[in-house]
Order: sequence, then C-alpha cells, then structure tokens
Amino acid sequence: MDSMLHYLDLAGTVVFGITGCLVAARKKNDLVGFILLAMVTGTGGGTLRDIILDRTPVFWVGQPIYLYLCAATAGVMFLIARRVEQWRQILLWLDAIGLAVFAVIGCSVAMEMGAPAPVCWLMGVMTATFGGIIRDVLADEPTLVMRKEIYASAAFIGAVAYWATGLIWLGIAAGFFIRAAAIYFRLTLPGYEAPLEPEALRRKWDRP
Amino acid sequence: MDSMLHYLDLAGTVVFGITGCLVAARKKNDLVGFILLAMVTGTGGGTLRDIILDRTPVFWVGQPIYLYLCAATAGVMFLIARRVEQWRQILLWLDAIGLAVFAVIGCSVAMEMGAPAPVCWLMGVMTATFGGIIRDVLADEPTLVMRKEIYASAAFIGAVAYWATGLIWLGIAAGFFIRAAAIYFRLTLPGYEAPLEPEALRRKWDRP
Amino acid sequence: MDSMLHYLDLAGTVVFGITGCLVAARKKNDLVGFILLAMVTGTGGGTLRDIILDRTPVFWVGQPIYLYLCAATAGVMFLIARRVEQWRQILLWLDAIGLAVFAVIGCSVAMEMGAPAPVCWLMGVMTATFGGIIRDVLADEPTLVMRKEIYASAAFIGAVAYWATGLIWLGIAAGFFIRAAAIYFRLTLPGYEAPLEPEALRRKWDRP
Repeated sequence: MDSMLHYLDLAGTVVFGITGCLVAARKKNDLVGFILLAMVTGTGGGTLRDIILDRTPVFWVGQPIYLYLCAATAGVMFLIARRVEQWRQILLWLDAIGLAVFAVIGCSVAMEMGAPAPVCWLMGVMTATFGGIIRDVLADEPTLVMRKEIYASAAFIGAVAYWATGLIWLGIAAGFFIRAAAIYFRLTLPGYEAPLEPEALRRKWDRP
Repeated sequence: MDSMLHYLDLAGTVVFGITGCLVAARKKNDLVGFILLAMVTGTGGGTLRDIILDRTPVFWVGQPIYLYLCAATAGVMFLIARRVEQWRQILLWLDAIGLAVFAVIGCSVAMEMGAPAPVCWLMGVMTATFGGIIRDVLADEPTLVMRKEIYASAAFIGAVAYWATGLIWLGIAAGFFIRAAAIYFRLTLPGYEAPLEPEALRRKWDRP
Repeated sequence: MDSMLHYLDLAGTVVFGITGCLVAARKKNDLVGFILLAMVTGTGGGTLRDIILDRTPVFWVGQPIYLYLCAATAGVMFLIARRVEQWRQILLWLDAIGLAVFAVIGCSVAMEMGAPAPVCWLMGVMTATFGGIIRDVLADEPTLVMRKEIYASAAFIGAVAYWATGLIWLGIAAGFFIRAAAIYFRLTLPGYEAPLEPEALRRKWDRP
C-alpha cells in the first residue's frame, strides 16, 4: 500500500469519525459517546475485515494512530459540531472520498491475502460500509439497508474496478464518481415494489 | 461432513438467503440491498461460529460458492419476490429444514475442533439463528429475542440430539420436528409474566 | 490474574447475566430467551475482546464454566425475576462492581498480550460495556450511546487507573467509585447541545 493511500486511509478515518460525531451530537451524547462513535464509525469496517480474514493484529491494535485520530476528531467535534453541521454539504463529498478509499483498501487487503474474487469485492464493500452500519445500529438510526441511497453499490464498483485493473486511483475514482453522481443527481437504484403494504406482508409471513 | 450434508448446507444457505430477500423486498431495497441481506442472512451464523472458534479461513472465504449462491438467490428474488411471497407457507417449512441443518452443522464443526459440550450446543444454536438476527437488526425488524416463537429452542434440541448420538439425520429430524410442531400447532414456550407493565418497569430500573 | 480476580470475574458474569434476564423478563421471553440474553450480556464484551486481540480460544470456549453460570443464572431468574426486580437498587450497585471488574480484566488481558496503551484502555471499556450493548440491540432497547449515564467513562477511568499503576484493586475502586457517584448523585457528563431539533438536522444531513 503506497504512502499516499496510507494518508488517504487516515483521512478517511477522520471523515468517517466526523460522521459518527454528528450522530453523537444529534443524540446529545457526552464526550465519551463522541469518542466511541468516532472510533466505531472510523474503524468498524476495517476491524470486521481483519477479523474475517484473520489478519492479525487488527490494524488499529498494531497501529494505534487510528484510535488517536478518532479520539482527537471526537474532541474537536465536541467543541465545534454546531459549526460542522453547516458544512454538511462538504462533508457528504468528503464522505464519498472516504467510501471510495476504504473500498479500495479493503479490496487490496483481501487481494494481498490471496482471497478469491468475490471475497475481495465483499471486503471492499464491508470496509467502506460496516462502520457506518454499526454507528446507525448503536444510535438507533435507520441503517444503510433502510435507506434508498446508492452507497454500498458505489463501494462495490470501486472495489471491482481496482480488482480488475490493479490501479488504485482508478478504483478510488470509480467509487467516488458513482457516489458523487448519486449525491449530485439524487440517484437511487430501482427498489423492489412490494405488492402488499408492508404490515400485511409481515403478518402473513410471521403468522402462518 | 458427508456430501449429502454439504448439499443440505448449500440449500439451507439459499433458503436463509431467500428470507433475507423477503425482508429486503418488504423494505423496498434495491438489488444491492437484496444481495447484502441474502449474504448476511445466509452466511452470518456460520461466520460468527468460525470467528469464535478461530476456524480459518471463514467457510465462505475458502469456498466462495456460498457468496455466489447468495448473490444468485438475490438476483432471482429481485425479479420474483412478489411471487415467492405466495409461497410463504412452503418457505416456513424450508426455513425449518435450514434451521435444523445449520444447527447440526454448527454443532458438528465445534465437535470436530474438540470444543466442550455446551460450546458445541451453543455453536449449533448460533449457526442456525445468528444470520437471521443480523438480518432483523439491519432491517430494524423485531429480533428472535422479541418474538414468541420456538426457534432457537428447536436448534438447541437438534444440536443436542446430534451431539448425544453422532447421528446427523437424527439431529436434523429432531430440530425439524420441534420447529415443525411449533409452526403447525402454533406452539410457544411459556413466557415470563412481568408483574409490572413494561414502561413502569423500565423507568424503575433505569432511573434509580 | 490472581484467583480473587477470577472469582470477581465469575461474579461479574452472573451480575451481567442477571441484567440480561431482567430485559428478557421485561420482553416476556421464554426460558431459551433468558439463557441467550444472559450469555450474550455476561460474555459478549470479553468475546469481542478476545476476537479482536486474536486470543484463542475465546475465554468461554476454553472455560465453559462461564456458559454454565449464565445458563444457571437464567434458570433461577426465570423463576424469580419478579422478586429480583424489587432488588433493582442493589442490582445497580452490583452492576457497578461488574463494570469495574470487567474493565480491569479487559485492560489486563490486553496488557499481557503487549497491546499499546490506547488499545488496553479501549479493551477495558469494551469488555465492560459490549455485552450490555448487544443485549440492548437484540432487545430493541436504547443502547448505552443513547442514554445519558456515566457508564463507559467509569470503565475507562478504571482501566486507565489499573494501566497506570498495575494495581488491580485501585483500578476496580476507581471504576466503581466513578460509577457509584454517577448512580448516587445522578451525575451525567455534559452532553452536546444541538442547535437544531433532531428531525430538522437529520433531514438536512441525509437529503443534500
């Protein structure tokens, strides 16, 4: 992993940490809540990746700089979250960069360990999305699964582009531009149209 | 693990993947959401089992056929979920088979690794139930813990029956028949009757 | 780990198991639900710690006494949960002891494995809090992140106190007294005051 990618990785951790802190602010958490949500969001995806690939030590156990960065992010955000909310448009774009970088890194880690192709792609998606998923579960927010945004799909395309070409920048660009297009044009993938209203469906399925 | 059990395992993965897709359909997810929920539901239990037992590689990292199956299931379901809902009664029975098969497989994996008895039983229950639990958490559905069905108990009995006798088919039959009886007769285990209504209870406990 | 700490660890597992059972009772679960929630709450934090540190086998796989204790706790609680609720004030204090013990144990396990300082502190916090977090997620209760209590902070201070001095009892005392003060004086750390009401904030952030 070249050193530019390493710095992008650190930057992605900070950006994801900030999104964790914005949720913490919305829930009126204290400083410890800010720190925990920043760490969970910033490192959760890579942690699951390293655990599933049995890559030891887990990246932040070996390189605690990631924890320091998340803690520092939380400390600053606890003071200025009010102001950061006004940058939310910028943050969306930074988050798109973080998504693209994490997808490529996750895929590249799996490739280095010799994982089969679909595992590499999935590790890209997982690294890019799982931190945000835990953040939303802990904070009782609707998860990725419930939202209609193109997010995991952008990570998938970025990971596949990197996997197919071995070009880091192409992978990052692919993931970023898909996500950026989704933000800019408010794109969504076509969703499944249920023929029954959800409540009726659930009753039928759960109560035979 | 004999090859019949292997095919049952693949079939169980598909059935569990289908239940993930039905939740995705209910939430009007896009194709990527279908794929992720199919993978999480179909492989989540075995993934946690392999991680806890430190069994490397995690089964689907070594055998990506499981990922392909889940992705194919999601692709087909995205087209026909509307129709599948009408088979929900059949699906309940298929899900019962998946539950019984996964419970025996989980128990057998733990036994092969020399785990103590209660760990083997728990791995059976975990393999059979954890994928569905993550599915429900991600989709903000009530988890197993909240429902009054005999589900984990059926997995437990199947795992114990296999553990005690070493007979794969007896374990599967035991788990399946308990679950089938629960479905057919709408059985539930007696639940704890709280003396206070839940809200009052929570307030008392949370606010000393 | 001296043997007194080992017994405190077992006691902490039982206390955390009891809090899992109280949630199970509140949700009117059956006996299997009691057992699962007791196990998840009593062993979840240490399980995540051992997985992240790649410490094999996971403590309860090697020492199933922890599972037996949780199952026994669940069995007893299923009969007497109604009565235990009247001891909830006592339970809060026992839970504070469990919190302090688990924080020191988590930190000490990480130190023995040579982990860097912030990893040791985080493992203390994680061991003390993660079981309760999974319990709340499974039971659809507000997690730690949503509550305004000093809980994770107490675990953090206990872990740091042990890490700095190497004195087990000082670490436990520090964690316990912070938590005890929080219970007794109903202390909370200052929370972040969001400038917008949450709904407006979310809309702005989610819909660019």
